[in-house]
Amino acid sequence: MNFGFALQAQDGAARAGLLSTTHGQVETPTFMAVGTAGTVKAMTADSVRATGAKVVLGNTYHLMLRPTAERVARLGGLHEMMDWPGPILTDSGGFQIMSLAKLRKMDEQGVTFRSHLDGSAHHLSPERSTQIQHLLDATITMVLDECTPFPATHEQAAVSMRLSTRWAIRSRAAFIARPGYGQFGIVQGNVFEDLRSESAAALVEQDFEGYAIGGLAVGEGQAMMFAMLEVTAPLLPAQKPRYLMGVGTPDDLLGSIARGVDMFDCVMPTRAGRTARAFTSHGVFNLRNARFIDDARPLDATCACLCCARHSRAYLHHLFRAQEILGPMLLTTHNLTYYQSLMTQARMAILEKNYAIYCARTRAGWENAKHG
Amino acid sequence: MNFGFALQAQDGAARAGLLSTTHGQVETPTFMAVGTAGTVKAMTADSVRATGAKVVLGNTYHLMLRPTAERVARLGGLHEMMDWPGPILTDSGGFQIMSLAKLRKMDEQGVTFRSHLDGSAHHLSPERSTQIQHLLDATITMVLDECTPFPATHEQAAVSMRLSTRWAIRSRAAFIARPGYGQFGIVQGNVFEDLRSESAAALVEQDFEGYAIGGLAVGEGQAMMFAMLEVTAPLLPAQKPRYLMGVGTPDDLLGSIARGVDMFDCVMPTRAGRTARAFTSHGVFNLRNARFIDDARPLDATCACLCCARHSRAYLHHLFRAQEILGPMLLTTHNLTYYQSLMTQARMAILEKNYAIYCARTRAGWENAKHG
Repeated sequence: MNFGFALQAQDGAARAGLLSTTHGQVETPTFMAVGTAGTVKAMTADSVRATGAKVVLGNTYHLMLRPTAERVARLGGLHEMMDWPGPILTDSGGFQIMSLAKLRKMDEQGVTFRSHLDGSAHHLSPERSTQIQHLLDATITMVLDECTPFPATHEQAAVSMRLSTRWAIRSRAAFIARPGYGQFGIVQGNVFEDLRSESAAALVEQDFEGYAIGGLAVGEGQAMMFAMLEVTAPLLPAQKPRYLMGVGTPDDLLGSIARGVDMFDCVMPTRAGRTARAFTSHGVFNLRNARFIDDARPLDATCACLCCARHSRAYLHHLFRAQEILGPMLLTTHNLTYYQSLMTQARMAILEKNYAIYCARTRAGWENAKHG
Repeated sequence: MNFGFALQAQDGAARAGLLSTTHGQVETPTFMAVGTAGTVKAMTADSVRATGAKVVLGNTYHLMLRPTAERVARLGGLHEMMDWPGPILTDSGGFQIMSLAKLRKMDEQGVTFRSHLDGSAHHLSPERSTQIQHLLDATITMVLDECTPFPATHEQAAVSMRLSTRWAIRSRAAFIARPGYGQFGIVQGNVFEDLRSESAAALVEQDFEGYAIGGLAVGEGQAMMFAMLEVTAPLLPAQKPRYLMGVGTPDDLLGSIARGVDMFDCVMPTRAGRTARAFTSHGVFNLRNARFIDDARPLDATCACLCCARHSRAYLHHLFRAQEILGPMLLTTHNLTYYQSLMTQARMAILEKNYAIYCARTRAGWENAKHG
């Protein structure tokens, strides 16, 4: 199957689409489960599938250090290794180098750094990042970019964005096209409209299979993030998928879909699942809270996941208090299922031209958290 | 369904039987998965079922402290709370008090101790232990006993065993009989034949639904344990199930079945599953070992569990190196499946009067560990 994206419906700027890849089709909007080191934390591949997730994200930085891209390739690629035959998107490694690696040194060529695991020296260039993602057998490869710090001056943001643009062009040249595989460019430019515009124009010229919006959700706040989406999304080709990187809360997702985003990834539902934070149709709560100690109700009565179908809040409370691994296992299952059901319902609402009402009702539900 | 045990076949002293309970039937020999605090560590109830396990064991000491027996009862009992409708056996709490609790004080009445969790004071008597297990809705209730230290003098062992006998009689009196539920006495007497004999005789008089052999696997060594089984098993009624508590390695299990034991429990397969130790038909090995880093073979090619069917040793090695929760999840699944398949095959061999050959072949397989 060739790589492609069909826009199926629009409600305002909100879009419903169908992404086609060699590893399967994905209805959008879609939320991708983060599987950093070749596993969605605390989940088997089967339990990830059961949440409704269609795409898993792998982190190039983690995988290049351990088990290494060459080793993953020898094991048949990431799909085979982690038992995920569906689509896999890999990031470029740039973002994690900035947040995790030691002794970073960046120049035009790329970035040299030391592993946070064992201090070993590594080099990542646009070409090497693209090659690593090829070795991992990524369905969707991301270009290497520099993540501009926030806040940044217009000058800093411009210099950084233009470097990212040159790297995007080199990443594109290094990408080995195969049927059903794609590569996404990443729009940078911090919170400056003119830079976002310049970045988008340069990337569109490269005719990527999709476009990501990067450098948001880094501290600028939801209002500024939404403003930047309103500027950026219209600059991107309507017939290509749009991916907002590293976002976010359920409310961020609804607002971003309203502004034309099709794809998301975020550690939030999985990380929260390991720290007892539950995302539900009644809002967010922490299951370690003593008020759940005798609460025999399901976590979310509107949810059909294993956790909600079989267990009580009191049991989940007990598992987290007792530091049992089953707590993170069940709550990650629920949180990912909740994120997927948000996407499924958002899609349905868009198809029915009912998206604004759906968002209003969903947000009203979250306000009920205080009632239980 | 009434509680009962049907002896279906014997091969030498090895037995195949069928245990019937209100929560379902169990073919023996059987290995019970340890679910200390209301969860088999790193496993969902569904994944425990998939290993073939039929009985889960709950620990009274852990559950009485957290979430408390009364709370479990309000949540509908342990079956309902942990989504395990099958049989559950609970221990009496005695053994764990000795190994975990602080400031223990024991007298004829029972034992007073402080919680290892918060220092709170608690009292456990034969009557209270039996009541707690009733509140937990245990399918099989164990009598409260004192675990004689090892080594002990004949005098110490006799005093301790006789206290356990008096407690067993009080536990029996406190047990509320219900159709399909049972209570097991526990033979003590350390490594002294005459004491084992005295203990067994006194317990058999109480007409328990089954008999456990306690106080073994505490440091006496396999040869002495087997010797004690040879002394004790013949003293127990043939038409009642026999349960060897806290045992053991795969080799311990095969040898104990050969000496007339029907039921086992042990933390070994689950604990090992969290520390990268794999039990396989090729023997035991540690998946953190560097020799597995590029090993694309399944952990055990003869095993049909999720872990062996879908993943490589190299992936498991990676998961343990990266400290990913999926490592313990997959390896616990495998280890429990391996223990269950040992039991299933042992049963089949007994039915075919082929048990000695089965054991010899299985042990020969373990010797292959060095070949990979």
